[in-house]
Amino acid sequence: MTRDRSLPAGLHFQLQHVDLQSGARLGELHTLRGPVCTPAFMPVGTQATVKGLTPGMVRATGAQMVLANTYHLALRPGEDVVKLLGGLHQFSGWSGPILTDSGGFQLFSLARISAVTDAGAQFRSHIDGRLLELSPERAVAIQEQLGSDIAMVLDHVVALPSDRTLVEEACQRTVLWAERSQAAAVRKDQSLFAIVQGGLDPQLRQSCAERLVALDFPGYAIGGLSVGEAPAEMYRILDVTAPLLPEDRPRYPMGVGRPEDLLEAIRRGVDLFDCVMPTRNGRNALAFTDRGTVRMKNRVHREDARPLEEGCACAACQHSRGFLRHLFMAGEMLGPILLSIHNLTYYQRLLSTVREAIKADRFEECYREKMAGWQTA
Amino acid sequence: MTRDRSLPAGLHFQLQHVDLQSGARLGELHTLRGPVCTPAFMPVGTQATVKGLTPGMVRATGAQMVLANTYHLALRPGEDVVKLLGGLHQFSGWSGPILTDSGGFQLFSLARISAVTDAGAQFRSHIDGRLLELSPERAVAIQEQLGSDIAMVLDHVVALPSDRTLVEEACQRTVLWAERSQAAAVRKDQSLFAIVQGGLDPQLRQSCAERLVALDFPGYAIGGLSVGEAPAEMYRILDVTAPLLPEDRPRYPMGVGRPEDLLEAIRRGVDLFDCVMPTRNGRNALAFTDRGTVRMKNRVHREDARPLEEGCACAACQHSRGFLRHLFMAGEMLGPILLSIHNLTYYQRLLSTVREAIKADRFEECYREKMAGWQTA
Repeated sequence: MTRDRSLPAGLHFQLQHVDLQSGARLGELHTLRGPVCTPAFMPVGTQATVKGLTPGMVRATGAQMVLANTYHLALRPGEDVVKLLGGLHQFSGWSGPILTDSGGFQLFSLARISAVTDAGAQFRSHIDGRLLELSPERAVAIQEQLGSDIAMVLDHVVALPSDRTLVEEACQRTVLWAERSQAAAVRKDQSLFAIVQGGLDPQLRQSCAERLVALDFPGYAIGGLSVGEAPAEMYRILDVTAPLLPEDRPRYPMGVGRPEDLLEAIRRGVDLFDCVMPTRNGRNALAFTDRGTVRMKNRVHREDARPLEEGCACAACQHSRGFLRHLFMAGEMLGPILLSIHNLTYYQRLLSTVREAIKADRFEECYREKMAGWQTA
Repeated sequence: MTRDRSLPAGLHFQLQHVDLQSGARLGELHTLRGPVCTPAFMPVGTQATVKGLTPGMVRATGAQMVLANTYHLALRPGEDVVKLLGGLHQFSGWSGPILTDSGGFQLFSLARISAVTDAGAQFRSHIDGRLLELSPERAVAIQEQLGSDIAMVLDHVVALPSDRTLVEEACQRTVLWAERSQAAAVRKDQSLFAIVQGGLDPQLRQSCAERLVALDFPGYAIGGLSVGEAPAEMYRILDVTAPLLPEDRPRYPMGVGRPEDLLEAIRRGVDLFDCVMPTRNGRNALAFTDRGTVRMKNRVHREDARPLEEGCACAACQHSRGFLRHLFMAGEMLGPILLSIHNLTYYQRLLSTVREAIKADRFEECYREKMAGWQTA
């Protein structure tokens, strides 16, 4: 098997260091729209906006790359509209790198799928019930119209646990679709990442990974995780899957996760993350801190003049806990906005700390400190 | 009658110029927390936050002073909590001057009043139906605890049109309450403004104004307007009321209004404004521009790459109309946020233009230009 090691124009992943005592990797993803220090966390901008934040506010949290959703944008406003309005960067106002997912996960989680065959998936829109189709070729074409920097292949996601035959079939189809996606891609300024499926079955994960690696993608996601399985199950799958992926390509467990999940995944050698948790939890008055999560609606904060997190320079931490609680109790939009900012800032600070720790070969120490802190809540 | 012309420590209104061809006044309100150039527009921060904006974002629209609501803050979180958390400025994060209204208007518009006597108003909270009381003394005490720079006396607001006897009684009570409010006020760093009532009756407005002027307040509001009456009725009341107020004190028609109302009021010689319209309309996808209002959900904007308003430097106008429409169609919070920012920026820019025009004795020209532009929509 010959591997073409050339990456698409503009994308280059540089593995800078591997922690001496764990699998934690320090790297840099070079894109046409600037660098991304890894391990990195991408805020989720489902509908071309991180909910409640302007692009400038997202940038101020420390984020370097964001994620947008192909499924949502294809339904509304339509990829043709995004393209007419200058592509996703111009449209959203985010000038840094953008990764788009393929829609595979939304077909599974949001839409009502009516049929999946090798040709593609038939589904009904979650907005208006229209019957639509998504094929691997179509997912690539949409993402090329959107103009993201990194596109994802369409994968077949199944619920966990599922019957082994079903998982195996989805796995086969995911590889088939990856190959077709690769053949369909024409944009030279966009990189296409593959997605390893295989449910909770190490053998299926292994065969899926090996076949996708043989196809030589510039990056690899580990999909179908963070869908309700126990954390230990997820870590076990990362344990077997990450080492099978090429060392010189970014590894990306999609949709992961809680701060502890990020650390567990990083020590197993992955590089990229996305998750709605900081923003969704923020909107629901749940804040992340080094001392665990804080429920901002709790009455205990009513007269608390302290900031949410001491030493945090984010916009939320310029206010008292009492004010933040008031905003949520009064149903004010500013509550969700400020807590989204804090949580995103928290995630970015966590990853910045992790990167420093890897560089100094003390990731495990950092891991233990953070884990201990979160358990004090 | 002797008038004590001394103003409370920290507040000083300087009338700088009156337009040669109209009643439009240029001035500056000096407060302990900085200057306010008049005519000025105060964004409304009902519950100690301008909806959807951080204090920094409010400042960036050009606002110098904001308004907060005594009624709302007394109900939630309670003025004691605001005081414990350092007062309204510390609590909200807005370090510039703040004006609080007295709750009189909210009793009329939001709460279910069960009885109004000279002693005060009995009402039920719009949040939980609790039976509460508000007296002029209590309204002053709450505002002193909140710690605003300018407090308003409790007034008796009645619906328009109302029976003349009812309006007259409310008017009498408003003067009585103003006197008691003045006697109750103790904070030297807070100024108390009176509110002229009298409905649509010029005689009642006149007698109310004269009696309040005799009490020598550092500023005068014209209340009970913008409650559904025809604009011409409002202008007629401003015509008779404004000239009765001392020239050297700021004049403030509460709750006014649309951009055209601001210009009509300014040429009749008033100085301060507050209105929920820029933020409320913004949340409902209606934008103000020099070419009239724009409904951002309209399909005509779907593929429009132009900004909402050419030459506007606000955060909304960094995006295309197509993106703004998308945000509203997709139910994204960022739509209301960006349109609130634009509308507030629009109001501030309008008043800045007006101030320049007054300075150059060309207010009427400015008035005609703006009015003509708004009618092109």
